[in-house]
Amino acid sequence: MPARVDTLLTNAILLTMDDQLTRYEPGAVAVQGGEILAVGADADLRGAYAAVEVVDCQGKVVMPGLVNAHTHVPMTLLRGLADDLRLDVWLQGYMMPVEREYVSPDFVHLGTLLACVEMIRSGVTCFADMYYFEEDVAKATQAVGMRAVCSQTVMKYPTPDAASYEESLALAEEFIQRWKDNPLIVPSVAPHAPYTCTAEILKATSALAVKYDVPLHTHLAETATEVENSRDEHGMPVIPYVKKQNIFDAKVLAAHCVHIDEGEIYTLQHHKAGVAHNPSSNLKLASGFAPVTKMLEAGLHVGIGTDGPASNNDLDMFEEIRLAAFIAKAVSGNPTALPAQIALSMGTLQGARALHIGHLTGSLEPGKKADLILVDISSLHNQPRFKHDANGVYAQLVYSAKSSDVSDVMVNGRWLMRDRALITIAEDGLLAQAGEYARRIDAFLIQREQSVLSKLVAIGGAQEVESFEVQAKAKIADPAPILEALQKAEIEILHSRHYHEYDTYFSFEDASQGYIRYREDEFIDKDGGVSNVRYRLTLIGQARENRFPSDVLLSRSRFIAPASHSLRFYREYFKPARETFIEKDRLRWRVLYQGTEFYINLDRVDQPDLGYFVEVKSRTWSLRDAENKATLATELLAFLGVPLQKTVAQDYVEIAEDQPPGG
Amino acid sequence: MPARVDTLLTNAILLTMDDQLTRYEPGAVAVQGGEILAVGADADLRGAYAAVEVVDCQGKVVMPGLVNAHTHVPMTLLRGLADDLRLDVWLQGYMMPVEREYVSPDFVHLGTLLACVEMIRSGVTCFADMYYFEEDVAKATQAVGMRAVCSQTVMKYPTPDAASYEESLALAEEFIQRWKDNPLIVPSVAPHAPYTCTAEILKATSALAVKYDVPLHTHLAETATEVENSRDEHGMPVIPYVKKQNIFDAKVLAAHCVHIDEGEIYTLQHHKAGVAHNPSSNLKLASGFAPVTKMLEAGLHVGIGTDGPASNNDLDMFEEIRLAAFIAKAVSGNPTALPAQIALSMGTLQGARALHIGHLTGSLEPGKKADLILVDISSLHNQPRFKHDANGVYAQLVYSAKSSDVSDVMVNGRWLMRDRALITIAEDGLLAQAGEYARRIDAFLIQREQSVLSKLVAIGGAQEVESFEVQAKAKIADPAPILEALQKAEIEILHSRHYHEYDTYFSFEDASQGYIRYREDEFIDKDGGVSNVRYRLTLIGQARENRFPSDVLLSRSRFIAPASHSLRFYREYFKPARETFIEKDRLRWRVLYQGTEFYINLDRVDQPDLGYFVEVKSRTWSLRDAENKATLATELLAFLGVPLQKTVAQDYVEIAEDQPPGG
Repeated sequence: MPARVDTLLTNAILLTMDDQLTRYEPGAVAVQGGEILAVGADADLRGAYAAVEVVDCQGKVVMPGLVNAHTHVPMTLLRGLADDLRLDVWLQGYMMPVEREYVSPDFVHLGTLLACVEMIRSGVTCFADMYYFEEDVAKATQAVGMRAVCSQTVMKYPTPDAASYEESLALAEEFIQRWKDNPLIVPSVAPHAPYTCTAEILKATSALAVKYDVPLHTHLAETATEVENSRDEHGMPVIPYVKKQNIFDAKVLAAHCVHIDEGEIYTLQHHKAGVAHNPSSNLKLASGFAPVTKMLEAGLHVGIGTDGPASNNDLDMFEEIRLAAFIAKAVSGNPTALPAQIALSMGTLQGARALHIGHLTGSLEPGKKADLILVDISSLHNQPRFKHDANGVYAQLVYSAKSSDVSDVMVNGRWLMRDRALITIAEDGLLAQAGEYARRIDAFLIQREQSVLSKLVAIGGAQEVESFEVQAKAKIADPAPILEALQKAEIEILHSRHYHEYDTYFSFEDASQGYIRYREDEFIDKDGGVSNVRYRLTLIGQARENRFPSDVLLSRSRFIAPASHSLRFYREYFKPARETFIEKDRLRWRVLYQGTEFYINLDRVDQPDLGYFVEVKSRTWSLRDAENKATLATELLAFLGVPLQKTVAQDYVEIAEDQPPGG
Repeated sequence: MPARVDTLLTNAILLTMDDQLTRYEPGAVAVQGGEILAVGADADLRGAYAAVEVVDCQGKVVMPGLVNAHTHVPMTLLRGLADDLRLDVWLQGYMMPVEREYVSPDFVHLGTLLACVEMIRSGVTCFADMYYFEEDVAKATQAVGMRAVCSQTVMKYPTPDAASYEESLALAEEFIQRWKDNPLIVPSVAPHAPYTCTAEILKATSALAVKYDVPLHTHLAETATEVENSRDEHGMPVIPYVKKQNIFDAKVLAAHCVHIDEGEIYTLQHHKAGVAHNPSSNLKLASGFAPVTKMLEAGLHVGIGTDGPASNNDLDMFEEIRLAAFIAKAVSGNPTALPAQIALSMGTLQGARALHIGHLTGSLEPGKKADLILVDISSLHNQPRFKHDANGVYAQLVYSAKSSDVSDVMVNGRWLMRDRALITIAEDGLLAQAGEYARRIDAFLIQREQSVLSKLVAIGGAQEVESFEVQAKAKIADPAPILEALQKAEIEILHSRHYHEYDTYFSFEDASQGYIRYREDEFIDKDGGVSNVRYRLTLIGQARENRFPSDVLLSRSRFIAPASHSLRFYREYFKPARETFIEKDRLRWRVLYQGTEFYINLDRVDQPDLGYFVEVKSRTWSLRDAENKATLATELLAFLGVPLQKTVAQDYVEIAEDQPPGG
C-alpha cells in the first residue's frame, strides 16, 4: 500500500544536482514534513506514494532552488542610485552617505521584502545576506518563508545601527542567540572586510562565530588595491593576514576572493572556507576576474552571488550563473572551462556548501529540506531541445533560460510561488513605499549635488577653519629685497617653513560654488630634502566679501579637510567643469609686525611660469579688525619694498586661468 | 488647427538616442506614413497633432528599437545543439555536419520565423543576418515586418545552397537585384571570413557590393588563431590582408574584430567600416575581449550583436548590451568605462550606423523610420527609480531591465507587438516544427556518436584505403641480421624510407569501435634531418578477421584521413576513454619476395621502451590471396632470420597498453 506524503511532484525533468548529477526523465519528488522523502523515476514514485497534493509538472524542470551566496538585500532600495562610478566614489561618495542618512529598521524591512519578491520570482530559495539591522532582514525573510544565512555587520566605523564596534558585536551576539535554532534563518556575524575592521574585530567576530558554531561572513580580496594595501600595512596579502587573526577558526563564507594566489586558495580549502563568486559585481565595479577554475580544481566550495542590487543591478541568479560560465571560459581562453553542469552546481549545491548549510539544502536528496523550483523550458527562447547529449539540459538552463521561466517555488516544503503567483507576500504597496524612499533620497542628493560644500561635507572630515582672511599680494621681480627686509628689527620672525606645493583647482559651471583645491604640500628641510608630505582639500569661496584699497582682500570662509582620497577620487566625485594645476615653491614666515601676527609667503610660481609673488595674510573675525589689518598689511607690503601699484587682487588660480594657452 | 497623423505616442519617458541623447519626460512621438514626424515634450505634441491612434504610454520608456548588429537567425533551430566545446570542434564537428545535412529553404524559413518572434519579444526591430538561402531569410523577415540587412554567404567550400563559390556569388547577385529597393530588407553579400574565402572571393564580393552599393558583411579577426594564421600565410594580420583584397571599397560590416591592433582600428575607421561587437559569443567561445573602448575612442561605429543563437544561446540584446558595458569595465579595470548611455547607443544608433543604415533607423528623429519600442520599467526588478542623475534612466535600462520588460514594438510605423501580444505572426505551430527538426537532428547525432567511424566520416576527408592487410610481426633482439638478409639476392628492394613516428592512439569504452590513431610521420633524409612531416588520422578496426598459423594476421579494413586538425581537436571531438602514446624509429622497405610485393618495417620502439621489431606486411583483396600471402610472409620472416616462436599478434598499442605503469 503506498505511503502517504504531503506532496508528490510528478512528470518532471528532475535534476537532483547531487554530486553525481543524477537525473530522472520523467522523474518525481515526494515531500513530507518540509523534507524530501524520495526522488526517482516517475513510475516508481507514483507507485510508492499517495499524496495529499499531486502536482503534474507537465515536463517542466524540477531542480533545487538557487542559492544566492552573497548579497545585501536591503540595498534593493538603492538600486540604480549611482552607476558607472569607481568603487570608492560609489561607496564613499554615494552609498555610505545615503546609508548614514536613511538606513533604519523600516528601510531594512522594506528592502528585504522587495528583494525576496525579486528572488522568489527568479528561482532563489536561499541567500546569504550581510547588512545592518540584520534582525530585521531575518524577520522579513522568515515572514516571507525563504531560507537565509543572515549576517550582522561589524566594522571599525560607526554604522547605521551602532556607534561603535563593541555595540555592533553585542548586537550580533544577541541576534545569534535569538535566531540560533530557527528552521529558516541561520544567524551569522559579518566582520565587513579586513580593511574596514581592526585585527581585534576580526579576532572577536571569529571567537563569536566559534562560540555559537555559526558561519562568519566577510568580504575578502575584492580588489587589487585591497591586496596592495594589505601588503603595505601587514607585510602579507589578505588571506594570510586574516588567517593570522584566527578567522579560519570559524566556518568562513568569503565573498569575492578575486585577487588571491594559489597558496591562498590552498589556505581557504584547507580551512574549509566557502567562497561566494560575484560575476556581475566584479565586472561592473571592474574589480577583476576571480580565479574560479583554480578554486574549483582545488576542491573549494564556490557558490555564486549577485552581491547587492545597488552594484549589480539586480538579484538575477540565472544571469550570474551564465556569467560565471562565460567569464571562466573567456579568461582561461578555453571554451570547455566551467561547463554548464558545473556552473549550475555552483548555483545550487556548491553554493549551499559555501554557506555551510549543504546538509540542509542545495540538492534534491532524501533527508534534505524541500527547497525546489519548477522551470518552464518549453517557451520559444529555450527551444528546440536536443537530447543527444546528457548535459544538454544543463546547457539549456544556463545558456538559454531566463529567470522569468521560473514558474513555481517551494521552500521548506511550503509553496512560495505557484504558476508565477506569489503566495506568502503581497507585492502591492511595496513599490509605492520604495518610490517614497527614492523620492526622499533623490531630494537629498539633488540638494547635495547643487552645492560643492554639501558634497564636501557628505564625504566627511571637512571643517570650517578660518572665518575670514585679509590678504595682500603683489607681483615682484626679485625676491632679494624681501629677504633683506625680513632681517630688519621691525619684523619679529616667530616661525619659518619651506614648502613645495602642488595645487589642483577644480572650478565649476556655477562660479559661485567657488574652487575645490587639492594641495600636496611637500615640507622641505634645511638640506633641501622632503621631510613630510601633507594632502589637503580646501573649498575656497569664490566671491570676496569686500575689497579694500590697494587690493587688500577679505576672503570668504574656507573649509579644509584632510585629503584622504586620491585626486582621481575627487575628480570623479566633484565632476569639475575645469581643472587648473599650479606648482610653486613657498617660503613662509609667521611674524609679528607692529604687534599683529601676519603670515608672509614668498612664492615662486613655476607652473605656469608666473614668477615671484609676495603675500601678506592675517586671520580676522570682525569687519573692524579686518579694516585695521588691511591698513597694516598694506604698510607691511610697503615695508617689504613692494610698490602699491604692483598688488594683485586675483588668486593664483585666477591668474593661471587667465593665462593664454601655452603662455 | 492640429495636423493629422497616424499615431501619437504620449506620456512616455522618451529617449531619442540621438547624438545629444535628447530626452523628454513626459515626451511624445508623432508617426506618419511609417516615419517619425516629430518628437518632443508631451504637451507640445499633443497641441500640434491630432492622431488616428493616440497611445497613452503610461510612463513607459519609448526608445528606438534595438539593432542586433550580427546574427545567423536560422541557427535558432540549432540552439543548444552542442555547448562547452572549442570553436573548431563546435563548428566543424557539430554545426557544419548538421548544416550540410539539414539546412534547406524550409529550415531557413522556420528558423527565421522563430528568431523574429524571440527578437520582437525582446525589443529588437532590426538585425544584420548572414546565412545560406538568404532569400528565404529575407522573405520570412519581410512577412513578419521586421527590418534587416540580409547577407548571402559566399565561401570557398561547398555550402548547403551552392556547390561552388561562383554559384553562391551568382545567387548573391540575383538576391541583391531582387531586393535592392525593398522598404524593410537591405540585401547584402557576405564573404564568410578571410580564412574560409580565397583572395579572389574577397575581391569578387567587394566588387559586387560596390556595384549595387549594398553592405558587405563578414567575420574579421574573431580569434587569435585566425590572426596567427593570417600572419603565417599572408605575412600580415587580418585587416591589412582584407584591405589588400579591396574589401574596404565596399561598405563593410565586420563582425567580432576581437584581435585587432590600433593601426587596424584606424584602418577600419578610415574606411568607415562598421563593427559588430558580440560579447556573449566571444565569451562563450573564449575568443577573447574585443578592444571596444579603443574602437569607440577612434570614432568607429560599433554596434552590438548576439551572434547566432547556437553560440549564445539566445537573441537577447538586453543581455548583450549589459555585457558590453560590464566587459569593457572589467577589461580596462575602469568602472567608468563604457557607461550605460554609451552601451545603449551601441545597441541602437551606433548599431544602425555600423549596418550603414543610420539614415533609416537607430534613433527617434524626424524623417527616420518609425522603429520603436515601449519598455515597462515599473516592475519590481527595475525599481525604485532615482532621478537625481540624468543618466539614471539609461543605467536602469542597461543594468536592471530585462528583455521581458518590452511590451510594444513598432517597425516602419506598423505595430508588431502590442501589450506583449504578437500581431504579425502566430507562434502556434512553430515550436512543434522546431521540435521535429530537433528530433531528426538528435537521431542523426545519436547514430553518429555511436560509431567512431561515423564521427570520422562526419568531419570529412576519410577514405577506406586498404581492404585487408596481412601482417607478420616479431620481436627481435638485434637488427643487424635483418639488415644483412636484406642485402641478399632473394629480396629485391624497390624503395626505402626512414621515418620517426609519433603515434597517439585513442581507445573507447566499446572496444569494438577500434582505435583512432593520430600519427605524426617525420621523413628522415640521408643526413638524419627531417625533410617533411605528415599528419594522418587512421581508424583501425579492433577485431581481426582471421588469425593464421604463426600469428600472421589478417587485419580489418582501415580508414585514413589527412589530420588537418590538431590532436587536441580530435581528443575533444572523439572523447576517447583512453590514450596511448608510442614513439618509434622506422626503416621501411618496399620489396619483392618470390614475385610478391611486401613492406618490411624495422622498428625501434622508444616510448614505451619495447626494443626492436620487424614487421612484414602486404595488402590483399581476397581470402585465398591472404592465405597465400600469410604463408609467404612467414617464410620471409624466417628468411630474415626471425624464429617463428618470436612472432607477436598484438599491435604496438596493445603491447603498450599491457605494459605496467612506468614499465
